[in-house]
Amino acid sequence: MRLNRQRLVDAALVLVDEEGAEALSMRTLASRVDRQVSSLYNHVSGRAELIELMRARIVSDIDVGPFASVSSSADRVRWDEALESWARSYLRAFAAHPNLIRLLATTSISDLSTYQMYDSVVAGLRRGGWPETRTVAVMRTVEAHVLGSALDIIAPDDLISQDSADERFSAIRAALDPRFAESSSAVAAFDLGLRALIAGLRQEVCDW
Amino acid sequence: MRLNRQRLVDAALVLVDEEGAEALSMRTLASRVDRQVSSLYNHVSGRAELIELMRARIVSDIDVGPFASVSSSADRVRWDEALESWARSYLRAFAAHPNLIRLLATTSISDLSTYQMYDSVVAGLRRGGWPETRTVAVMRTVEAHVLGSALDIIAPDDLISQDSADERFSAIRAALDPRFAESSSAVAAFDLGLRALIAGLRQEVCDW
Repeated sequence: MRLNRQRLVDAALVLVDEEGAEALSMRTLASRVDRQVSSLYNHVSGRAELIELMRARIVSDIDVGPFASVSSSADRVRWDEALESWARSYLRAFAAHPNLIRLLATTSISDLSTYQMYDSVVAGLRRGGWPETRTVAVMRTVEAHVLGSALDIIAPDDLISQDSADERFSAIRAALDPRFAESSSAVAAFDLGLRALIAGLRQEVCDW
Repeated sequence: MRLNRQRLVDAALVLVDEEGAEALSMRTLASRVDRQVSSLYNHVSGRAELIELMRARIVSDIDVGPFASVSSSADRVRWDEALESWARSYLRAFAAHPNLIRLLATTSISDLSTYQMYDSVVAGLRRGGWPETRTVAVMRTVEAHVLGSALDIIAPDDLISQDSADERFSAIRAALDPRFAESSSAVAAFDLGLRALIAGLRQEVCDW
């Protein structure tokens, strides 16, 4: 099979999904695609570029569309609706690749499609009434909330369990009653938290 | 130097801090402390117990004290104040060990000191007025917010930078003006997000 950038990114994603971000090296990737390391450099300049190509792939799964329709007139999409829809789409994209969360969250961004996404978010927040000085913080804190929630959502179901809590700890044992399992799940927590975060941001922008 | 559990946990923390969670194995740890793998088993039962001992070490740095003083009477600590103080202390503990975030967030918890912390949080939320069915979700979403924010805070300062954004992306370029650097930082985003999240949770519990 002919090698190209797209196939290299496919293979890099599988590698990171299966073995973790620390396993990502040009050498390991070369052995995954049955090539000499040197031949990989015909397609990508190195590990740093691969990371940005993986970022672009994840970002292409994130829907930023609603922000394009944000305006302050009442009949259009509101900034808070667009933010919620973006956060949910962002969560889905990263929950599918949890090993990329730490890597992408802590590697300086050069990928242009990511800046294009941020541009849509910031422009939508501006048109929705946010002052320019605060748009980046709003965007960042929603991203942080989503990435932390993605880690919780991919955790095993018994991450916190009544059986593991000592008898002495009666409050947490009662709260972990299996009857409340649905309202205590990582997904329920994300729903509650995102709703609360956005409600709180609505309050912030009104107080501004 | 005599080996004991505490020294093993110290060494395991340094190993994970320096080489990442994937590097944590009894074999690697043994070579770090200059012992045979077999001698480690005199102190811990294996990797799973080590992880819980590391969890206990991190949890010991998290201050849950304010929750003990929560009551609904007006002169005591309010649940939202306790939650904010817990979140800030939680952030500091994990920002010091970012390589542990993913590992601890996705490994089922058996460590009793963690359940003890959760017991204080849940009991405080109950006394503060939260219905039992919702306490775990409140706690989880604050944890998720903190862990996602910790990843953002340990990222390089130029994670998102005006220089990297193409000229076409005028909204994000304007928002990333270095004059706004302070209000756009990961720390500013955490402050804004935590305040908004807790304000939104206050609204949730009132509407309940």
